[in-house]
Amino acid sequence: MRQLNIEQLPQVCDELRQYIIRSLADNPGHFASSLGTVELTVALHYVFNTPEDRIVWDVGHQAYGHKILTGRRERFSTNRKLGGLKPFPSPEESEYDTCTCGHASNSISIALGMAVAAQKQGSERKVVAVIGDGSMTGGLAFEGLNNAASTPNDMLIILNDNDMSIDRNVGGMGEYLHKLHTSSAYNKLRYSASKTLYKWGVLNDDRKGRVLRFNNAIKSLLTNQRNMFEGLNIRYFGPEDGHDVIGLVKTMQRIKDMKGPKMLHIHTIKGKGFEPAERDATVWHAPGKFDPETGQRIKSEQGKQTPLRFQDVFGETLLELARENERIVGVTPAMPTGCSLCIMQKEMPERVFDVGIAEGHAVTFSAGMAREGLLPFCNIYSSFSQRAYDNIIHDVAISRLPVVLCLDRAGLVGEDGPTHHGAFDLAFLRPIPGLTIASPMDEAELRRLMYTAQLPDKGPFVIRYPRGKGVLTDWHCPLEEIPVGKGRKLRDGQGETAVLSIGPIGNVAAEAIEENGLDIAHYDMRFLKPLDEDILEEVGKRYKRIVTIEDGAIEGGLGTAVLEWMSDHGYKPEVKRLGLPDQFVEHGTPAELYHIVGLDKESIKKTLLPTPLS
Amino acid sequence: MRQLNIEQLPQVCDELRQYIIRSLADNPGHFASSLGTVELTVALHYVFNTPEDRIVWDVGHQAYGHKILTGRRERFSTNRKLGGLKPFPSPEESEYDTCTCGHASNSISIALGMAVAAQKQGSERKVVAVIGDGSMTGGLAFEGLNNAASTPNDMLIILNDNDMSIDRNVGGMGEYLHKLHTSSAYNKLRYSASKTLYKWGVLNDDRKGRVLRFNNAIKSLLTNQRNMFEGLNIRYFGPEDGHDVIGLVKTMQRIKDMKGPKMLHIHTIKGKGFEPAERDATVWHAPGKFDPETGQRIKSEQGKQTPLRFQDVFGETLLELARENERIVGVTPAMPTGCSLCIMQKEMPERVFDVGIAEGHAVTFSAGMAREGLLPFCNIYSSFSQRAYDNIIHDVAISRLPVVLCLDRAGLVGEDGPTHHGAFDLAFLRPIPGLTIASPMDEAELRRLMYTAQLPDKGPFVIRYPRGKGVLTDWHCPLEEIPVGKGRKLRDGQGETAVLSIGPIGNVAAEAIEENGLDIAHYDMRFLKPLDEDILEEVGKRYKRIVTIEDGAIEGGLGTAVLEWMSDHGYKPEVKRLGLPDQFVEHGTPAELYHIVGLDKESIKKTLLPTPLS
Repeated sequence: MRQLNIEQLPQVCDELRQYIIRSLADNPGHFASSLGTVELTVALHYVFNTPEDRIVWDVGHQAYGHKILTGRRERFSTNRKLGGLKPFPSPEESEYDTCTCGHASNSISIALGMAVAAQKQGSERKVVAVIGDGSMTGGLAFEGLNNAASTPNDMLIILNDNDMSIDRNVGGMGEYLHKLHTSSAYNKLRYSASKTLYKWGVLNDDRKGRVLRFNNAIKSLLTNQRNMFEGLNIRYFGPEDGHDVIGLVKTMQRIKDMKGPKMLHIHTIKGKGFEPAERDATVWHAPGKFDPETGQRIKSEQGKQTPLRFQDVFGETLLELARENERIVGVTPAMPTGCSLCIMQKEMPERVFDVGIAEGHAVTFSAGMAREGLLPFCNIYSSFSQRAYDNIIHDVAISRLPVVLCLDRAGLVGEDGPTHHGAFDLAFLRPIPGLTIASPMDEAELRRLMYTAQLPDKGPFVIRYPRGKGVLTDWHCPLEEIPVGKGRKLRDGQGETAVLSIGPIGNVAAEAIEENGLDIAHYDMRFLKPLDEDILEEVGKRYKRIVTIEDGAIEGGLGTAVLEWMSDHGYKPEVKRLGLPDQFVEHGTPAELYHIVGLDKESIKKTLLPTPLS
Repeated sequence: MRQLNIEQLPQVCDELRQYIIRSLADNPGHFASSLGTVELTVALHYVFNTPEDRIVWDVGHQAYGHKILTGRRERFSTNRKLGGLKPFPSPEESEYDTCTCGHASNSISIALGMAVAAQKQGSERKVVAVIGDGSMTGGLAFEGLNNAASTPNDMLIILNDNDMSIDRNVGGMGEYLHKLHTSSAYNKLRYSASKTLYKWGVLNDDRKGRVLRFNNAIKSLLTNQRNMFEGLNIRYFGPEDGHDVIGLVKTMQRIKDMKGPKMLHIHTIKGKGFEPAERDATVWHAPGKFDPETGQRIKSEQGKQTPLRFQDVFGETLLELARENERIVGVTPAMPTGCSLCIMQKEMPERVFDVGIAEGHAVTFSAGMAREGLLPFCNIYSSFSQRAYDNIIHDVAISRLPVVLCLDRAGLVGEDGPTHHGAFDLAFLRPIPGLTIASPMDEAELRRLMYTAQLPDKGPFVIRYPRGKGVLTDWHCPLEEIPVGKGRKLRDGQGETAVLSIGPIGNVAAEAIEENGLDIAHYDMRFLKPLDEDILEEVGKRYKRIVTIEDGAIEGGLGTAVLEWMSDHGYKPEVKRLGLPDQFVEHGTPAELYHIVGLDKESIKKTLLPTPLS
């Protein structure tokens, strides 16, 4: 592509865009983000000598075009499928991919590390970080920016500003970027001025510093605004039209060899070039299958009475609870739609806080509200809650504050792969003193746990539940309290074996027991912490063999807790622990993945057969 | 105090300062920070109606004056002692303390939560966050600031700018604040202008917004600078002299009732009023005992040949390794002195990166360098590494990058209490696939592990070691490789019991075994992950009883790992696990605390006696 004439690039963009639209119509994935970065992607690979030069994508959503341009066009139909292309860029897959990028806001830190390494190695290779405005609200991005300002480096940060993260962008940063963007009078003036100065030879790299400073002062006067990036000693260029590929190429060519850290602010439209997506980028963030001509989304099982998703039961139930308990508030880091907190937000917007991509702040902000007597339900995807670990310990647990932490997307999430699986939550939360940790087996249990968590004096309370649909068609059970730390016996057994499960994987276990026709007892533990010691004592006394089943990491979760308890209390049953293996699980459909890790019905059935323990 | 006339406040400050100096001379603690905030503390309690109004201190170091003024003067001699005043403000201790504040950068998020709660509850109470410039580099502070800009609230953020965190402040933010501070020509102009405008009645709250904006534009022109806080829609006042108590009171009175979020930037001198501390604030951050007249620090055991601290062995060894291996770089989040990375920094400053208080970035930045072939040793205090949990998983472990994570201050740290104990690291790191996790029993082992970690193809490698002195007088052993996942047998035993320990607590165990005179085997496991399966098999076959000993949380660490392995491999020894209990351990000396939790020599001796298992 770098052989092409610059005038041919718009056509390349057009073809790339059409290819993305046609591919994703059939093979669902993250859609709108990648349409927005078509011109940027083409410009980057045209101007920079990739893979020798490094492009660090912040969150792989935007990088489908990048994949297609870098040798993966033929295999693109396997994207997100088991054994196929990975959901996000990955260095294991291509030398053009520079880092793991499933979680937002890490690109500046990674790129700074790479730029510093290039310097130490005496290499001339360039490093470019591409970060969205949504990701800019993450504290990690700021930490990276702050450090980039004081560590010698020549990296280029491209701020891809589409005024969105997944839902609409929030926070001061969003408003701030918006204002920068809309100060178009100034920009026109500045652009023509600098072009002229370059032509005259007045402006060059040496002089640029001083001229820029003066430039900025004028800018502040004209727009009544200051630019925080320049406040941080990072040269700022833009905003530019991110869909003008020729303009982008020219700008990048002009600034790529400049010394020192610099930022190019471009404005793009999420879903660009596909009208329905431009109109509603939130829906089209990951729309599923659709008709590429009409823009009609193809819904499976339309009209059928199927179970709601767990997240919707969360959303509906929280609204119900909030109507009765006025202390309840909702908090989400940029996922009101993704976790269905939008249901409560619609009826009581003043009681729901979307804090932007900022998981740590979401928890600590909740702690502040809880300190004053409010009762925050803070909803975070399980794998993203890893970012709030210290906040959970330091700001919530030490003070025993009543924050209800609802972890959506626990267990294997499927196509989003290893960065998004909620594999570790049970294991990393269990050592925290005073935390109540629960996982409901179905939607009714989720509702009862949520009801329980908001009753007085429950302290910090974690409820983790999976992505996707529930198991009940009638989820709307009455709300009633579950005693904290109490599980339930689902099935008595006269044989030698008892199954102890936690969470919805218990349904699979129940089916496996049923189909095997074995005389096996089954308990739904409900709580990882505190454990139901009555059940454990009963099981320890009656059964020779215990099989624990959970959809979390095998080291440190329910199985481990049961083992510890049995050991501490002098019981010595054989304990077989089923859970996620000690490795990062790749992407695929949840069904495929649970089969691979031995947590599908057939695998569990085999484990339960009275054969010698493996 | 609020009854006093404003003219009497300087004297209050003087007395408070002298009291702090005299108290800390005898009873060591965090010194320089609290001297710097004397005037601020007095002004805050004078202007605000505490405890009804809320003051949120970011990091309790600065809050000794606050404690003394709020009813704890008599007990101040018990500060940091077992059963005495807590090392940091704590709501359990006083109604004037609003949150747990051991880890930096959380104050804005907490205060925002409190301010929002006040609004929801229709209360007029004020909320003030006091945050140092060092803490401002933390991503959490930025997340809070960003959210504060877009969430309706009336809080006041006081930026206590002393140009330091513990070592000298780093990063763009530091330079930025410095420039703001030094633009004094502008400030004088602005101050007199606004005073005049107030007098004339031209300026009032309604009009303030518009006037401020114009004001800022002038400011930018005069100083060639932009103010990022105003960029974020937070009203900015200052910088003011933080040691002019009357000035502070007047400013606070003027702005306290203004609507919307606002920031008052004050400049203070760390160690103010005690000349040696003003000169060298890093040393005087926590100086130990000293003579309040001469400023002579009183060193215990002076001249005696005592073991080095673990951190110094880390620092010396890293320098040694870095001389030989040019791929090695050092990274610290604001602790070059605290972790002794300063030893390498002195000889090779260009290979050491102090990234400011930014633990997440420290790890992800290291990942970026490792990606390009460098070999970063990233040193973080164990309890602060909780802030980098996702970075360790997402940016390092998934990609198996060779980042060596050295966790200082593991185990019970003593006087800094529950926020600072490195209790959870073993438990939260163990479930992460592909991580090597080690803890050396002594300084020689630390050196060998560090040497091993920097050899080719070792992948991500964690080495955790405690605060304080080592156990060897001659620490400078030759550097040699330890096979990854291999422990060592310290002592054979023909009896029924084997002790398996990890880390320096193994020395205590060895003494206990020695003194008991029992025929007990003792293994130093060295590695939590991968486990030494040869040892485990030997122990599983030979011994009826295993006692595991570690200085980490009892749920999920070495004892748990041993239990899991024995269960998975069909061995059924009795396993007694010794470790930190499932509760937050308070403050006291390490000796006192290890006694309380049953990990001192006497307690271990009792456990090892051949009595029935408890």
